[in-house]
Amino acid sequence: MDLPALDTPFTVIDRDQLVTNLAAHQARTLERGIASRPHAKTHKIPELAHLQLAHGAVGITLATIGEAEVFVDAGITDIFLAYPLWLTPHKAERLAALATKAHITMGVDSVAGIEQAASTLGSTTIGFLIEVDSGHHRSGCDPRAVEPLAATLAHHNLRFDGVFTYPGHSYHPDIRDTASMDEVEALTIATDVLESAGYTVSRRSGGSTPSLHTTQGSLTETRAGVYALGDAQQVELNTMNMEDVALSIVTTVVSSRENTAVVDAGSKVMGADRASWATGHGRVLGHPDARIVAMSEHHTTIVFPDSGPKWEPGDILRVIPNHVCNAVNLVDRITVVSADQAPQEWAVAARGKNS
Amino acid sequence: MDLPALDTPFTVIDRDQLVTNLAAHQARTLERGIASRPHAKTHKIPELAHLQLAHGAVGITLATIGEAEVFVDAGITDIFLAYPLWLTPHKAERLAALATKAHITMGVDSVAGIEQAASTLGSTTIGFLIEVDSGHHRSGCDPRAVEPLAATLAHHNLRFDGVFTYPGHSYHPDIRDTASMDEVEALTIATDVLESAGYTVSRRSGGSTPSLHTTQGSLTETRAGVYALGDAQQVELNTMNMEDVALSIVTTVVSSRENTAVVDAGSKVMGADRASWATGHGRVLGHPDARIVAMSEHHTTIVFPDSGPKWEPGDILRVIPNHVCNAVNLVDRITVVSADQAPQEWAVAARGKNS
Repeated sequence: MDLPALDTPFTVIDRDQLVTNLAAHQARTLERGIASRPHAKTHKIPELAHLQLAHGAVGITLATIGEAEVFVDAGITDIFLAYPLWLTPHKAERLAALATKAHITMGVDSVAGIEQAASTLGSTTIGFLIEVDSGHHRSGCDPRAVEPLAATLAHHNLRFDGVFTYPGHSYHPDIRDTASMDEVEALTIATDVLESAGYTVSRRSGGSTPSLHTTQGSLTETRAGVYALGDAQQVELNTMNMEDVALSIVTTVVSSRENTAVVDAGSKVMGADRASWATGHGRVLGHPDARIVAMSEHHTTIVFPDSGPKWEPGDILRVIPNHVCNAVNLVDRITVVSADQAPQEWAVAARGKNS
Repeated sequence: MDLPALDTPFTVIDRDQLVTNLAAHQARTLERGIASRPHAKTHKIPELAHLQLAHGAVGITLATIGEAEVFVDAGITDIFLAYPLWLTPHKAERLAALATKAHITMGVDSVAGIEQAASTLGSTTIGFLIEVDSGHHRSGCDPRAVEPLAATLAHHNLRFDGVFTYPGHSYHPDIRDTASMDEVEALTIATDVLESAGYTVSRRSGGSTPSLHTTQGSLTETRAGVYALGDAQQVELNTMNMEDVALSIVTTVVSSRENTAVVDAGSKVMGADRASWATGHGRVLGHPDARIVAMSEHHTTIVFPDSGPKWEPGDILRVIPNHVCNAVNLVDRITVVSADQAPQEWAVAARGKNS
C-alpha cells in the first residue's frame, strides 16, 4: 500500500485491515452469542465508532463524560460509561444533559458513589451497572458484596441494569486465560447473589481483547476495544498477529550505526507504555525480529538482527506502539489509507477528554 | 493555595514555585558561567518560554520543526533544534521559512545528514552543531570522529557553530554523576579534535537537569529543561525536592479500600513513563510515603502507609507525573495558580507538534 509523503512521524490506519478486524470480531461475538459494545477510548474517533456499529456493535463504551459528549455530538445514541464516576454537581449536570440525547448507563462500585449520584442527578433515565473486581484489583467491589449497592440504587429509585468487570490481569502472557475464567466467575457470583435477592440482572458486561479469546458464555456483552486496531502488546500476548495490526506510525531513520537505527518516532507519538513482559517499546512492522531497545520523546532505538538490512538516515520504517489507546491519544488527526481509496484524515475528536 | 473547582482530572502549574525554580536556575548557571538555553519540549508553552528568557535564558531548545513554528510565531527569536533532523525538501522549506524570522541552529550527527541538508536547504543562515555521543548511545557520533562532519559542512559552505551532547544516561540514580563527567569529557574531546584541525568551536552545548547538578565548567550552555516544572523522576533522582515540583494533576478518589485509593488521573493525563528504578507511576504531592502501584488510562492506584489518612470517594488529591514532558503533551490547556493572582490558563501551544 502506498503511503502519503507527509512529514514524519505520522500515525496511519490501514482501513482495509481495520475492516477485516471488525468483521472477524463480529463473527466471533455472534458465534458466542455475546453483544459487542466496544470501548471507544481505544480510538476516540467517531467515524470508527460508526464503522463498529455497522459491524454489529450494540453501542459503545467510554470512560469519561468528556468523551461521551464528543460521541453523542457525533450521533452515537447508546453509551456505557464503564467507570465509577464521582458525580459532582457539575459532572452530574453534564451527564444529565447527555441522557436527554442518548441512552446512558454508568458504573458504580460503592454505596458512597451511588449516594452521591442520587444527590446530584435527581430523577434520571440513566441506568447503573455495579462494577465487581475479578482479580485485577483496580476498582470494583467484591462480587459477593454487591447486594448493598443494588439495595441503595433501589432505595433512591435509580435503575439497576446489571454487573460488569474488567479482567485487566489478562494483560499478562502467563495468566491471560485464567483471567478470562476469573472474569466469568466474578460475574456469575455477583449475578447469583443479586438474583437470589430478587434483582433482575439484565446485563453481564466483561471483556478485554485478551480475555475475549477464551471467554465462553456467561457474558451478555464484551467491551473489548483494542481488537479493532491492535498493537504490539496484543502481538506479544499472542492474541493478534503482527499482520492484523491496523495502526502504525510512519517514521524516518535519522541516525544509524551497525545493526542499529534511530528513528524520529518517540514516546510523544508512540506512548511510553511498556509492560514488564514486553520485549521493548513497541515493534517494527514487517520486521518481527527487530527490537525497540530504547525510547525517548523523539528518538526510538531499533536493533535489527545481524542478518537483516542495514538502515541509513532517510530510510522510512513503520513502527507499532505497545498500547494503541495511548498512542491515539497523542495525535489530533490520523491518516487513513486503503488499497482502493485516496488517503483520508480522521480527527481524533475525543483526544484529551479526560474529565 | 486554593485550587479552582474544575472537573477532575486537570493539570495545574504553581506559578510561584515555577518562578522560584527559574530564579534558582538563573543563579546556578550565572555562578558557573554557563548560558541557559532550556529545552522547551518540557512545557511547550510560549508564556513559559518568555518567562525563561526574562530569567536570563539566551534562547530555547526544541526537537522538531513543528514546535519551532509555534515558538517563532510566539515571538521567540533564537532556537536550537538539538536533533539530527533529516531534511526532506518539505521539511527544509519549513525550516528555511523559520530562518527568515529567527536565529536557527540545528543538530547533525552524520555526513549523510549534512549532505541531505546541503542538497535541500541551499544557501542558508542556519548554523550547525555536531552531536556527539557521551554514553547515552542514542544519536550522536563518536566524539573522536567529528572532523569529517565539520569538513563536510565546510565543503558545502554550511556554518559550523559547535558541538553538543545529551547525557541521557544521567537519568539513573547510580550513574547520574558519572554521566555528568562523561558529558564534559565527550565535549572536550570533540572540541580538541576540531580545534586541532583549525575549526572554531564557539558553542559546547550539554545538559540535562540531573547532570547539571555536578557539571563543572567546559560547557558554554546547558539545555536542561525539566528544572522549571520538575517531576517525580527528579524527586527520585534527588535533583529536586517534592516541594520544588511546580506541576501536578488534581484528581478525585473514585474508589477506595483499606489503605488504597483509586483516583481518576491515569496514563492519559499523567503519561505512562516508568523508569526501571522508579518507585511507581508517579508520586502524590504532600504524601511522600504514598506509592502509585498501578496505573491504567483513567485509574491510578495509590497505596498509603498504614498510619496515613483513609481516603474516601470524592476526596481530592494532587499527583505528580513521573515525566513532566510527556504529561504536558497530553493536555491542550493548563491551569496556572498563584498565591496572589486569579487562576489563568496557558495553552500548550506546541502540544503534538511531532514533525
